[in-house]
Amino acid sequence: MRILVIHGPNLNLLGTREPEIYGSVTMEEINNSLRQTGQMLGAEVECFQSNHEGAIIDKISQARILTSDSNNNPDKGGFDAIIINPGAYTHTSIAIADALAGVNIPAIEVHISNIHKREEFRQKSFIASVAVGQITGFGKNSYLLGLRAAVDIIEQA
Amino acid sequence: MRILVIHGPNLNLLGTREPEIYGSVTMEEINNSLRQTGQMLGAEVECFQSNHEGAIIDKISQARILTSDSNNNPDKGGFDAIIINPGAYTHTSIAIADALAGVNIPAIEVHISNIHKREEFRQKSFIASVAVGQITGFGKNSYLLGLRAAVDIIEQA
Amino acid sequence: MRILVIHGPNLNLLGTREPEIYGSVTMEEINNSLRQTGQMLGAEVECFQSNHEGAIIDKISQARILTSDSNNNPDKGGFDAIIINPGAYTHTSIAIADALAGVNIPAIEVHISNIHKREEFRQKSFIASVAVGQITGFGKNSYLLGLRAAVDIIEQA
Amino acid sequence: MRILVIHGPNLNLLGTREPEIYGSVTMEEINNSLRQTGQMLGAEVECFQSNHEGAIIDKISQARILTSDSNNNPDKGGFDAIIINPGAYTHTSIAIADALAGVNIPAIEVHISNIHKREEFRQKSFIASVAVGQITGFGKNSYLLGLRAAVDIIEQA
Amino acid sequence: MRILVIHGPNLNLLGTREPEIYGSVTMEEINNSLRQTGQMLGAEVECFQSNHEGAIIDKISQARILTSDSNNNPDKGGFDAIIINPGAYTHTSIAIADALAGVNIPAIEVHISNIHKREEFRQKSFIASVAVGQITGFGKNSYLLGLRAAVDIIEQA
Amino acid sequence: MRILVIHGPNLNLLGTREPEIYGSVTMEEINNSLRQTGQMLGAEVECFQSNHEGAIIDKISQARILTSDSNNNPDKGGFDAIIINPGAYTHTSIAIADALAGVNIPAIEVHISNIHKREEFRQKSFIASVAVGQITGFGKNSYLLGLRAAVDIIEQA
Amino acid sequence: MRILVIHGPNLNLLGTREPEIYGSVTMEEINNSLRQTGQMLGAEVECFQSNHEGAIIDKISQARILTSDSNNNPDKGGFDAIIINPGAYTHTSIAIADALAGVNIPAIEVHISNIHKREEFRQKSFIASVAVGQITGFGKNSYLLGLRAAVDIIEQA
Amino acid sequence: MRILVIHGPNLNLLGTREPEIYGSVTMEEINNSLRQTGQMLGAEVECFQSNHEGAIIDKISQARILTSDSNNNPDKGGFDAIIINPGAYTHTSIAIADALAGVNIPAIEVHISNIHKREEFRQKSFIASVAVGQITGFGKNSYLLGLRAAVDIIEQA
Amino acid sequence: MRILVIHGPNLNLLGTREPEIYGSVTMEEINNSLRQTGQMLGAEVECFQSNHEGAIIDKISQARILTSDSNNNPDKGGFDAIIINPGAYTHTSIAIADALAGVNIPAIEVHISNIHKREEFRQKSFIASVAVGQITGFGKNSYLLGLRAAVDIIEQA
Amino acid sequence: MRILVIHGPNLNLLGTREPEIYGSVTMEEINNSLRQTGQMLGAEVECFQSNHEGAIIDKISQARILTSDSNNNPDKGGFDAIIINPGAYTHTSIAIADALAGVNIPAIEVHISNIHKREEFRQKSFIASVAVGQITGFGKNSYLLGLRAAVDIIEQA
Amino acid sequence: MRILVIHGPNLNLLGTREPEIYGSVTMEEINNSLRQTGQMLGAEVECFQSNHEGAIIDKISQARILTSDSNNNPDKGGFDAIIINPGAYTHTSIAIADALAGVNIPAIEVHISNIHKREEFRQKSFIASVAVGQITGFGKNSYLLGLRAAVDIIEQA
Amino acid sequence: MRILVIHGPNLNLLGTREPEIYGSVTMEEINNSLRQTGQMLGAEVECFQSNHEGAIIDKISQARILTSDSNNNPDKGGFDAIIINPGAYTHTSIAIADALAGVNIPAIEVHISNIHKREEFRQKSFIASVAVGQITGFGKNSYLLGLRAAVDIIEQA
Repeated sequence: MRILVIHGPNLNLLGTREPEIYGSVTMEEINNSLRQTGQMLGAEVECFQSNHEGAIIDKISQARILTSDSNNNPDKGGFDAIIINPGAYTHTSIAIADALAGVNIPAIEVHISNIHKREEFRQKSFIASVAVGQITGFGKNSYLLGLRAAVDIIEQA
Repeated sequence: MRILVIHGPNLNLLGTREPEIYGSVTMEEINNSLRQTGQMLGAEVECFQSNHEGAIIDKISQARILTSDSNNNPDKGGFDAIIINPGAYTHTSIAIADALAGVNIPAIEVHISNIHKREEFRQKSFIASVAVGQITGFGKNSYLLGLRAAVDIIEQA
Repeated sequence: MRILVIHGPNLNLLGTREPEIYGSVTMEEINNSLRQTGQMLGAEVECFQSNHEGAIIDKISQARILTSDSNNNPDKGGFDAIIINPGAYTHTSIAIADALAGVNIPAIEVHISNIHKREEFRQKSFIASVAVGQITGFGKNSYLLGLRAAVDIIEQA
Repeated sequence: MRILVIHGPNLNLLGTREPEIYGSVTMEEINNSLRQTGQMLGAEVECFQSNHEGAIIDKISQARILTSDSNNNPDKGGFDAIIINPGAYTHTSIAIADALAGVNIPAIEVHISNIHKREEFRQKSFIASVAVGQITGFGKNSYLLGLRAAVDIIEQA
Repeated sequence: MRILVIHGPNLNLLGTREPEIYGSVTMEEINNSLRQTGQMLGAEVECFQSNHEGAIIDKISQARILTSDSNNNPDKGGFDAIIINPGAYTHTSIAIADALAGVNIPAIEVHISNIHKREEFRQKSFIASVAVGQITGFGKNSYLLGLRAAVDIIEQA
Repeated sequence: MRILVIHGPNLNLLGTREPEIYGSVTMEEINNSLRQTGQMLGAEVECFQSNHEGAIIDKISQARILTSDSNNNPDKGGFDAIIINPGAYTHTSIAIADALAGVNIPAIEVHISNIHKREEFRQKSFIASVAVGQITGFGKNSYLLGLRAAVDIIEQA
Repeated sequence: MRILVIHGPNLNLLGTREPEIYGSVTMEEINNSLRQTGQMLGAEVECFQSNHEGAIIDKISQARILTSDSNNNPDKGGFDAIIINPGAYTHTSIAIADALAGVNIPAIEVHISNIHKREEFRQKSFIASVAVGQITGFGKNSYLLGLRAAVDIIEQA
Repeated sequence: MRILVIHGPNLNLLGTREPEIYGSVTMEEINNSLRQTGQMLGAEVECFQSNHEGAIIDKISQARILTSDSNNNPDKGGFDAIIINPGAYTHTSIAIADALAGVNIPAIEVHISNIHKREEFRQKSFIASVAVGQITGFGKNSYLLGLRAAVDIIEQA
Repeated sequence: MRILVIHGPNLNLLGTREPEIYGSVTMEEINNSLRQTGQMLGAEVECFQSNHEGAIIDKISQARILTSDSNNNPDKGGFDAIIINPGAYTHTSIAIADALAGVNIPAIEVHISNIHKREEFRQKSFIASVAVGQITGFGKNSYLLGLRAAVDIIEQA
Repeated sequence: MRILVIHGPNLNLLGTREPEIYGSVTMEEINNSLRQTGQMLGAEVECFQSNHEGAIIDKISQARILTSDSNNNPDKGGFDAIIINPGAYTHTSIAIADALAGVNIPAIEVHISNIHKREEFRQKSFIASVAVGQITGFGKNSYLLGLRAAVDIIEQA
Repeated sequence: MRILVIHGPNLNLLGTREPEIYGSVTMEEINNSLRQTGQMLGAEVECFQSNHEGAIIDKISQARILTSDSNNNPDKGGFDAIIINPGAYTHTSIAIADALAGVNIPAIEVHISNIHKREEFRQKSFIASVAVGQITGFGKNSYLLGLRAAVDIIEQA
Repeated sequence: MRILVIHGPNLNLLGTREPEIYGSVTMEEINNSLRQTGQMLGAEVECFQSNHEGAIIDKISQARILTSDSNNNPDKGGFDAIIINPGAYTHTSIAIADALAGVNIPAIEVHISNIHKREEFRQKSFIASVAVGQITGFGKNSYLLGLRAAVDIIEQA
């Protein structure tokens, strides 16, 4: 089981960025927890962050299941699931949603804060329309619950 | 740790109700899984279903943390967290949201289907504005992930 | 042929309630006409009224076609069609619509007044999205025409 | 009793037109059923179809109750009720609604499909604001139920 | 003079419920003040609370002016005015508004907080369309001013 | 000076059509007044009525200023101004507005009733966007004032 | 016959103000034309301009028909009709509309430019809801046509 | 206790202005009642009416609590509460709301008619966002109830 | 291959109609180019223009593929594709869209100007929902490109 | 260089008015700074404040460039630029915007707070549509920066 | 003639991406067809794809007609026309539209699917406001028709 | 004092890009003026331009105040204020706004044209919600005024 975790824009600032909303945990700490929990659940976790919408699309594009490629080059492709926190692109990027729809990998949308109780414009997710499900509001735990959900989906597929 | 699980309207029909949307698991099977996982995580789980908005409000109203009462009468009150799948009331009931805001217990909103990819009117949740977080789209697993989230919140409180 | 007629909130007031809109016929007179016409068309008609959204959902939930049950207990379930005047819940209850979608019985929506020429908020019906058809504006006759439609649907099924 | 039945645009295509929505009955078959049922109920039924909004308005304009005229020329005017399926003009023609409001004849709006569960733009009826009532979703039967409603209205007038 | 006071959902929680919005007075204290002021003004005050929309409709339905009935059974009906704080149902219940329109008793709408300076969805009242007037924002005093208004209306009728 | 007066749909019913809105003057009486006032002001007035949007467009299309043509055939074209009461097409016909924009003749929009104090949908005029001005609410006088305005515009051109 | 003409804000700038929209005629020239035409039609015309919403309301308030007052003091009140160009207050002043509704004098709304083909916000008139009719787009002539309409209305009253 | 009562535009017309909406009581009668009731409750009441938005703002601006000034000059400032019926400015004046927010005096909004059951545009109050509460629909009594509310607020401050 | 070209309202005015928007080519010149290019591509092109919505629907209705009929009568029916420039009916006619959906012939929507950069109301096309594709903004060339697209679609069918 | 500074409603309260939004600087201090900076930049600054929309329009109306007048009477007119903080009239006054458009003087819009991050209704400026530019959010400095911008514009003209 | 073809986000996935919507042709095959058809029509075609909004803007920015540069370096700039399929950026990128408006090269917008019959959010194109025209719904052929349109525009320039 | 100036998409084209809107000054000339004025005011100005949303976010992310870092590497971080002209991203990028909110540096939003008098979609700024203030419409001067504002803010901090 190989799982790709994508952090969208500004998540590199976690820990110092508006801590009253996003908490004091850093992205690196989240990534470590994900890798440990992944190991426990039998899943290899690869983490990726970018502030560039295009780079996120590139990454998703390369995540497609191409068995021959992924055998030779374990760093590229061959992922069984994608966990994505699209950050602000959640609300503006049709292109990332299209990318997820364009590859054959189940996607799980996670958010640190509960976007449904924030500004009106944060309550609309273009990503949701192509994701299996959404987990929002549990801080770092949103990612870990997403990882459990991902493993469950892969095992039932 | 005592956790209250509330199922809203029509969830009693689970298993036979529109299985292409809601799957074939019954509410009783979900409740059993919740009780078992709860036991594993050290939490006592009480399950409740009603098609009546008022009955759900009554139940929330009685769930308030009144230590002396809950010691004597374990069936009423004294809950540390509420997991609620408000069903169709998600989108229409300000009163249930007010009830949750009116008691001092963290609430977690769960949905079997991913409401954010369904009809427009199912994408608005009044409950979200008073819940810690939301988990949506993972079938039975939405409840179990919600239970884990609840335990985590209680332990960190 | 067994047909369930459901009257929503405030229809118990028919006859005295805003007669310039709803006329002077009482609910009991409508029920009597329905039973007589039903007998003429070979259909047993059961009538039910409640001001409680939850009670209407409970009733629909129990109306499902469970042949063995309905044989033993003719009062519960085993209905071939539902005629429903959801009253004000027409415009606010997603939960009743979900209940109708959740059971396998054709539903016919009827209204005494022509809701499409009244206030804007009365022109939207959540029930319509799950009903075979809608008859509106013919007073008591809306029910009787609905009964004929129901018999026709059952016979063609 | 003389009753005018008006079919709006594209209803001449009935039977072959999108049968999954409109069924396989032809307009001619509907007209025959209407005439037969009319005879049974003591009503003379005249049927008219046009794809032209203006032609429908012309027809309604001539349907006014002018006793002296209608005696001499039974083909024109003197109608006691109008049953109209305005087709797509339901949603766009204020002019047909004005025509119906401009003559002194009760109008009944019928639709083959349940317009209230179709596209948003099909859920608004300009005609409804001037019709006694609306019957929608029962296929050919919408017309026949409309005929019964019409006879009932004439007899009670 | 008999006056019915109806408290809607969650008002049983008054005193502990979000005191920064609703204050620290309990429903029972409000009821006592109402009864005392009523006595002073020559009015008998009956208080009723329910979290159930249907129960509130039932109560209003039974409040109709049936002189012979109310003489025999002082607990049911025979009310000269209704003071209602519909709580969250203010904004969602067309059915309660219809119930008030369906009985012949002047209604006065009261709110503890000033709903017109809160969330957008709390600024729309379905009840207002059938009430004589509205008093909002004065805490417990909203009820007492409503009582004075009610007595004034009854005396001028 | 040649002036074309166009009456839109249902204006043939004037006099009997909803007299509380449109008054009791007939179209023929309006036409006579227009011809008389026209004569007084030195303008030849031609009147045209149709319930057909297409026929109105055809008429406008032929009204273009083709000097050689209009000399030979006084009945067609050569008009110096158009006075148009587009009736219900005011609010729905982009095509009539396009026709007026497509010919080189100043157009004046008139209405018998004051459309700006009627239903919301009657307050939007597609015609206004291509007309010199609008006169609304003065009954028959709207046409006569429009005629004066037309003569004034032609004389100042 | 006494007729009050009210010019709203910025109409004192007429002649130099955005002449491509409002033309080059000054307010004084319009007033002179109105007085002359008035004399011709047997009507005394009083003209008033203010940039102050409140001053316009004051003026309307004093225009009420108080026969005894107006006999003694010809400068105040006793007007048979009001012609008003409310300028920008057309679109923002409910208070001026209420003032017109509050006095018993027919009002005619005029505009120099055709407001219905300008910015969206200029297409809504609060004044229209209380005026007999509206004349818009004919420059100075809008006032003169309005004067004729006023005389006609007074004579027919 | 000194209380300022502000009447907005057109309230000087009370008694004759649209009596079916606003009743037949004059502003002077209301002021007299207010002064009498004030005396009874121990409050000095000053009344002010203007049709000018700016004059109302000026008045509010001068109502600020400046102890030294108000001692010397009892006519200016030193008010403990403001009761305001902003008339049509309720719905259009952000400036009056800003003025009330800019001074340190509790404000109570009153309306003679129930604005929440009138035109859509009368249901929005800019004033509500800065007022303690709102009393609407009780005719003259709205003011008197407002006075009681004001006294209660001052006494509890 | 037989291809029907339909020109909607006002396209008969092409060449003189608002040439800054629609250019100086006439409809006849477009038709000639279409027939020539058609000949080159092996397609027989029939051209039709009407200002009447109903006439366009009639034409589409008769265009259905009835092989036996079209052999005998080459002027009626038997078309393999429809190229339609619906003019202003693009934005208002659900009935033409329904007609196209009702016959089994691929339709291509063309426009001379780029409707997506014009007024808001010209950016919505009811026709698009039933057309294979849309070509807009290339003047006469829109038709010729549409013809190539049509031939391509027929050949690939 | 002569520059007119206009302060809109409630700006006379600056210093004490909601200091958490508007700061503690008084209008007089701002005016002094403007006059000093003006002197430094070679510009004569005249300051004006009113709570009356009409008075502001009057002032703008008199600010037009009339060389002969302004020479004789330095207090009236002859201004080269207008700096305006329209206060709450920013969002409601089309009339002030029309006044600015009606005179030939470049206008600069300034605001103390950043209106674009406040309530939705404060984010719309009617004034912006006629101003050269807008400076918002810099407290007293918004005026001073506006003054520099004004001088720059005059010098480049 | 040099023509630049720009493919937006996810078009690199063509062939495998949602083939029921986008077909089975790959981007490379489209590019080959474009180059071949270009050769036939005397146009050199350069193709570019990026998932990065910024990279597309960079490319457009460099496409400007700088004769001296493009002579020396045929790979950069000097394009006579741009054919752009902006993919999902069609609906969200004002910046790409601004880039096209900022360079002096005619642009043609193409889409593989008919965006006007898909989700509401896909029916709005920011690009359309700056493009000559739009071709949508013809699969690979949309590009080839766009190429013909481009050549035609260049030749007529 | 170190100040970062960020130019968004297409600002590299300044000088040739739509000069009727954006003027003829180039970005380099603006940067030079900023550096010179900065020197005069005692501020070091660093300028940055990118068409990539992600690159702008990266730049902001690195601009955080990390004293030790910025001492060693004057090119990265350590900025006291940010002046940003977000170009088209103003209206679409929540991510840039989040980045600005995520770092502890006051931001000033500037625009060359007055965005509040352009297209509707250019009047909404996501950036405004996190900026101290906004300066718009003064061409190159918008930047220079922004620089003065920035220096003032830093000095007052």
